Amino acid sequence: MTLLDGKKLSAEIKEEIKLEVEKLKRQGGKTPHLAAVLVGNDGASETYVANKVKSCEYIGFKSTLVRLPDSVSEKDLLKKVNELNNDKDIDGFIVQMPLPKQIDETKITLAINPAKDVDGFHPVNVGRMVLGQPTYISATPFGIIKLLEKYKIETAGKNCVVIGRSNIVGTPMSILLSRNAYPGNCTVTLCHSKTKDIASFTQKADIIIAALGKPEFLTGNMVKEGAVVIDVGITRVPDASSKSGYKLKGDVMFDEVAPRCSFITPVPGGVGPMTVTALLGNTLKACRKEVYS
Amino acid sequence: MTLLDGKKLSAEIKEEIKLEVEKLKRQGGKTPHLAAVLVGNDGASETYVANKVKSCEYIGFKSTLVRLPDSVSEKDLLKKVNELNNDKDIDGFIVQMPLPKQIDETKITLAINPAKDVDGFHPVNVGRMVLGQPTYISATPFGIIKLLEKYKIETAGKNCVVIGRSNIVGTPMSILLSRNAYPGNCTVTLCHSKTKDIASFTQKADIIIAALGKPEFLTGNMVKEGAVVIDVGITRVPDASSKSGYKLKGDVMFDEVAPRCSFITPVPGGVGPMTVTALLGNTLKACRKEVYS
Repeated sequence: MTLLDGKKLSAEIKEEIKLEVEKLKRQGGKTPHLAAVLVGNDGASETYVANKVKSCEYIGFKSTLVRLPDSVSEKDLLKKVNELNNDKDIDGFIVQMPLPKQIDETKITLAINPAKDVDGFHPVNVGRMVLGQPTYISATPFGIIKLLEKYKIETAGKNCVVIGRSNIVGTPMSILLSRNAYPGNCTVTLCHSKTKDIASFTQKADIIIAALGKPEFLTGNMVKEGAVVIDVGITRVPDASSKSGYKLKGDVMFDEVAPRCSFITPVPGGVGPMTVTALLGNTLKACRKEVYS
Repeated sequence: MTLLDGKKLSAEIKEEIKLEVEKLKRQGGKTPHLAAVLVGNDGASETYVANKVKSCEYIGFKSTLVRLPDSVSEKDLLKKVNELNNDKDIDGFIVQMPLPKQIDETKITLAINPAKDVDGFHPVNVGRMVLGQPTYISATPFGIIKLLEKYKIETAGKNCVVIGRSNIVGTPMSILLSRNAYPGNCTVTLCHSKTKDIASFTQKADIIIAALGKPEFLTGNMVKEGAVVIDVGITRVPDASSKSGYKLKGDVMFDEVAPRCSFITPVPGGVGPMTVTALLGNTLKACRKEVYS
């Protein structure tokens, strides 16, 4: 069993991007510039955004953090989005979700210029992914693809089961692994809350992507010998024995499943660290106008 | 076994749209107006477009047929697309594919104003479908959804196998039947040319969508008793005994498969006739600004 080490791979990719940025600068090119809009003071969102800004600095990107109060109106947020759309120095930006209740998240996503949508959430970028056109692939799917690539995991003709049909993980993963490309060419089954007998599907799968957000859902008896298991879940579960009072749990019962696997992601340290990398990679693409010219 | 009669349903939906158009006109509203661009003289394309124009006239739409020579340049076709984008009387339009070699079909599709893209091929409309936002669903998937609806076929929790991953049928069908809606909530497996042992999937399927374009690929032993089978294929196969010298064959070996099914589409007369209806429905939606306001 080999651990798919997202922490290590993420660090490697950051070094690669860092070198690219140095080269760009030496050649007199533009410094990639990522902006993040943070509304309110949600603890998790603060952490994510701080992490993104820190990574930008490390690899030599310019970064801008726009803070708006929790009480901001939809109109004012749209105004800010529009400003960022028109700011020529900013190559890409994200609006950290979730947003307060008074704001329609879909409306905000639709307002972002697709060329600067480095989160890959705008429908035109989702559609481009479906149609196999150049696009920004969103963070988690991008991270999973990179892990499969790095560890040279065979995917063509493999049976893949994706559990969870969210717009940001399960659905795009099922599409990406079905396409005629590497990684891809899998026969993908997308399971969800209405699926009868999920185990009957996972037991035949060569590759399992667990992305339903239920701690330790995937147990040993649901996985065949030699499977590749990607655990996207990350849930805080109360734990009296830890200092923080909680523990992070994935969607996979790791101790049971890992011994059966050829490859498996740990939680934390698997898919999680890859997501920031995706954002940085997309921003570099945006700066180079590789998707929209 | 019940035949899913696309010819009959298509006629019924046309009558419904006809009534809607009469009502719209009585209320002093705009007459829906569909335009079709036909490049060159391909026989099949001529037939499709003629059929579309005829249907428009029947239901009371305005229609415009734009003919361009086979030798038209990409630039001139883009100019025409732009004219149609800006023509306020035209609610929706299509550019009949395939296009001659000198023209990049993707470029043309991207140039169409998504609000007028009643074929539903623009990536933003594909992305909206994936994300469950209002959109124009493309012709064949729309037709299949309508057939499932009309015959009140249960889909929630059913195992569905889609064979073929084309951008215009297989991939969108797999997405639509996975979503949390009716028809939908299926556990969908998308099979394709790289799938090992397709029969092992189809034999467990409650619903099979055959869209690979191989005449009589799906045989009786691949289908379980009581399955619902939708045959999207339509291929001309040489046949000395027929006047025309050919016969139309679907992807399903009908004589073997039909006796095992609860529901099955005939070829011709199944999915085929539904596709024009989709275009008319989308044009009505466009006229009423139901997708883009």
